[in-house]
Amino acid sequence: MPTNFTETKTWKKLAASAQRMLLPENHLRHLLKNKNRFSEYSCSGGGVFLDWSRQRVDNEIMQLLLDLAKETGVQKRFSDMVTGEVVNLTENRAALHTAARDFSGQPVYVNNTDVMPEIRRVRDEIRKFSEQVAAGRILGTTGKPFRHVVVIGIGGSYLGTEFAASALQGMADTGIELHFLSNVDVDCFGGIAAQIDPEATLWIVISKSYTTTETSANEKLAKNYLSSYGLKPEDHMVAVTSRGSPGDDSSNPVRQVFHMFDFIGGRFSVSSAVGGVPLSLYLGYERFERFLKGAGEMDRHAQKAPAESNLPLISALISIWNNNFLGYPAFGIIPYSTPLSRLPAHIQQLYMESTGKAVTQQGRQVETDTGVIIFGEPGTNAQHSFFQLAHQGRPIPLEFIGVINPYYNDYETTSKGVTNHQELWANLIAQPRALACGSENEAHPARNFPGNRPSSVMLLSSLSPENIGRLLSFYEARTVYEAFIWDINPFDQYGVELGKTLASDIRKQMADKNNNPEHRFATGDPVSDAYLEILFSGNL
Amino acid sequence: MPTNFTETKTWKKLAASAQRMLLPENHLRHLLKNKNRFSEYSCSGGGVFLDWSRQRVDNEIMQLLLDLAKETGVQKRFSDMVTGEVVNLTENRAALHTAARDFSGQPVYVNNTDVMPEIRRVRDEIRKFSEQVAAGRILGTTGKPFRHVVVIGIGGSYLGTEFAASALQGMADTGIELHFLSNVDVDCFGGIAAQIDPEATLWIVISKSYTTTETSANEKLAKNYLSSYGLKPEDHMVAVTSRGSPGDDSSNPVRQVFHMFDFIGGRFSVSSAVGGVPLSLYLGYERFERFLKGAGEMDRHAQKAPAESNLPLISALISIWNNNFLGYPAFGIIPYSTPLSRLPAHIQQLYMESTGKAVTQQGRQVETDTGVIIFGEPGTNAQHSFFQLAHQGRPIPLEFIGVINPYYNDYETTSKGVTNHQELWANLIAQPRALACGSENEAHPARNFPGNRPSSVMLLSSLSPENIGRLLSFYEARTVYEAFIWDINPFDQYGVELGKTLASDIRKQMADKNNNPEHRFATGDPVSDAYLEILFSGNL
Repeated sequence: MPTNFTETKTWKKLAASAQRMLLPENHLRHLLKNKNRFSEYSCSGGGVFLDWSRQRVDNEIMQLLLDLAKETGVQKRFSDMVTGEVVNLTENRAALHTAARDFSGQPVYVNNTDVMPEIRRVRDEIRKFSEQVAAGRILGTTGKPFRHVVVIGIGGSYLGTEFAASALQGMADTGIELHFLSNVDVDCFGGIAAQIDPEATLWIVISKSYTTTETSANEKLAKNYLSSYGLKPEDHMVAVTSRGSPGDDSSNPVRQVFHMFDFIGGRFSVSSAVGGVPLSLYLGYERFERFLKGAGEMDRHAQKAPAESNLPLISALISIWNNNFLGYPAFGIIPYSTPLSRLPAHIQQLYMESTGKAVTQQGRQVETDTGVIIFGEPGTNAQHSFFQLAHQGRPIPLEFIGVINPYYNDYETTSKGVTNHQELWANLIAQPRALACGSENEAHPARNFPGNRPSSVMLLSSLSPENIGRLLSFYEARTVYEAFIWDINPFDQYGVELGKTLASDIRKQMADKNNNPEHRFATGDPVSDAYLEILFSGNL
Repeated sequence: MPTNFTETKTWKKLAASAQRMLLPENHLRHLLKNKNRFSEYSCSGGGVFLDWSRQRVDNEIMQLLLDLAKETGVQKRFSDMVTGEVVNLTENRAALHTAARDFSGQPVYVNNTDVMPEIRRVRDEIRKFSEQVAAGRILGTTGKPFRHVVVIGIGGSYLGTEFAASALQGMADTGIELHFLSNVDVDCFGGIAAQIDPEATLWIVISKSYTTTETSANEKLAKNYLSSYGLKPEDHMVAVTSRGSPGDDSSNPVRQVFHMFDFIGGRFSVSSAVGGVPLSLYLGYERFERFLKGAGEMDRHAQKAPAESNLPLISALISIWNNNFLGYPAFGIIPYSTPLSRLPAHIQQLYMESTGKAVTQQGRQVETDTGVIIFGEPGTNAQHSFFQLAHQGRPIPLEFIGVINPYYNDYETTSKGVTNHQELWANLIAQPRALACGSENEAHPARNFPGNRPSSVMLLSSLSPENIGRLLSFYEARTVYEAFIWDINPFDQYGVELGKTLASDIRKQMADKNNNPEHRFATGDPVSDAYLEILFSGNL
């Protein structure tokens, strides 16, 4: 790969192709006249179906994008990742979320050590623990079975689990309600405390380092809350953390510690004990394992399928095309399925934290824009929200997700001759077409639809645990592929450090004021000082 | 106002100023060395506080923006709106959401008719109805008091109420749980059905026209569900709809009909019966009225405060500056308050549906980009999600929202010397500073923070109903001001029509297939036909 990939012939040809796509004859409404376009620009793989026929591409562009993938060697790097190479260079670590769903029985080596026995050990501990809780063999201090589980974790220790739990909510039959204490906000804690029975609540503290400020503060609050009811942390708390962290220490009395590993990053960690412990308690371990196996199937597809039928890679290439060549600064994820409501928030973290980087793995400035903004709400809700802008305002590439068979598939009431599920699909089918083709109306400019707005459609056969795993792995692989093409590190997050440092200075000022009401704020920044005055005054 | 406002001197001077702001000496870290900047660029009004000191503006730019407001006559147009003029030209309607929270006793005329008596009548009906339900004087068919309320409504009949209800959740003491059946997805219905007791559930069907496809389909499903339990719609359903709609008809047996008015648009309707009925059942009518009164206070501020201290107007002008001059395509709303989690989704609809337009009220193409993308998650959660990108990737203007006194203010546990609420604020204070000032690190490029990333901070004194109303009204006024500056209509949404038309064609194909399994799909679009085949096959 040349040092500067934007100087390659392929990149320049792609830039020229973007100009070509501005010609009227390359409007999507014309491209879609090709009757073979759908079959040529759609494909099944890893258990899902992807259709990019409404993307602003043609055969020449697709070939150039595949050339880009080849020249940047991303499939080799993806394989290196899966086989345990140190692909996270800035932190000198492997990135082995894929190992967490590897049931092949083959070893995976990190620095000459097979990590699979440890992964299997933790999975086994999760299975046993969740079975014992479900069977009522593990009880709270006062002998009550657990009916509430509160996950104390933020970012990657929260969003993926929340997504998977809400996606599979219909099959949660363990009698346990799941709550997420993510924010350090006492209104997050108070809202949960108002809903739970302390004697029947298990708290899962999740932090790789066990020093995450928000999580530590909430852990402390939870411990005080337990004490106030005469309950013991060693009965009501478990920890998910790294071996040897402050949480994995006899001075931190908890019922059990589940290990997580430095070769699985936070936002890629839902397949590890981070998701495994809460999801197994909520759904039963077997469903968690089915989720892992679905993810594993997509992992193998992402690693092994040839580029031209590799769905995460194709999706990554089209994302780069839309971003770096067509200039779209965002994309929307629109699941036509209410249980997938929290998918956009999880992918927002996964993708934006992984690709919001300015320098390559080697520390050079990246020559192009990197990650875009991701947002989304379920359809058809989104049609009644921001789709006005998507149709007539600023164009936004959209990714539609459809589910062929809903979970609650026995509601057969019809309205206007169709079931509600069919109505949902009528809209799912209509929107990409409306966006792509538009409809001209010179007489009524307010009713003119310019069209030529790109979108993809992904389909799942159902909301099974396997399919939720496939969906997760698809977006993980897609994110990694995009980052590898830009040569940025999808696994670090130095961009969050400055805010932490400044917050630490401000916290110090607050603590000083708590100790001494005469303390005068001196953050070195008059604006920060002013806010400290406002907070301590209690008034606007 | 000249025909083409981008040809005005003011607009051109603003464009030149944007170039000037690129100079190194105009980096925010330098502008913030002015010790008076915070006091000059912050202001209280309408019961909230706004700080724009970390926006990339200076005195000259602020003056030009105020000139722009003056030249476009937006304050006059805002007053016209409040006093009942027909400001929604394409639909020939007034836009009087402000009248819904007018307690002045003064008349408000639409076409020479005072609309206030009708508004007061509906408010009174809401009060009586919610009091009777709370007192157990209105019961279900089998004599059970109502413990669940399901709101059947989508878009503007859903998002604003969801935002207000979740913001005020802590004070919900009526013993009623609120559910939102927005999506036509049966998994939305099934998920709710799994949580409710049908005999103790009241359904509120909300649709101005009573013909919204999703709402009608869900109403039918709910009626069948009631029947299957031997329950009657005339006991378990109420309607919020226009006078004379199909829902306001004796052939539609419901317990009570609450009227909504064509002069209040869907996304501005939470202050009407749309929000009033569910919020009064959930929180009690008095709190709903307090919410209205807070909104009313901000309405008067937005209408009457001079431009230089008019917070919604200043915010609108800065939004236009960031969008049309500095070129930022999005902004993020980051409430440092978990109960405000659904604010971004509501403002996403309010703003993107109102400003995602390509033509002026007169049907001319707008000369600039219009509305941007809005998204957001609460802080500090967002710091552990997409803030990596905000700090080191593509810059995104952010709007931080802080709450001085949390709702659950009795959790005083400290960690690192501060309470959790103080920790939350340490982060709220640190982030805008980190974004603005950055921190250079040539030795470690991955740890370099370019800074110069703009943000605002808004403060509320607490999560009172009044403050939630103020917050709502602030964003409504800001949205209207932005649209008025561009001379687009914030009150119509023709952009959603094409999708509806195409969905209707596809629905027809589905209904034909339901009636006749031999029917061959013929939408005229091979891609749509292919999706119909997939859906009816039940397989990928």
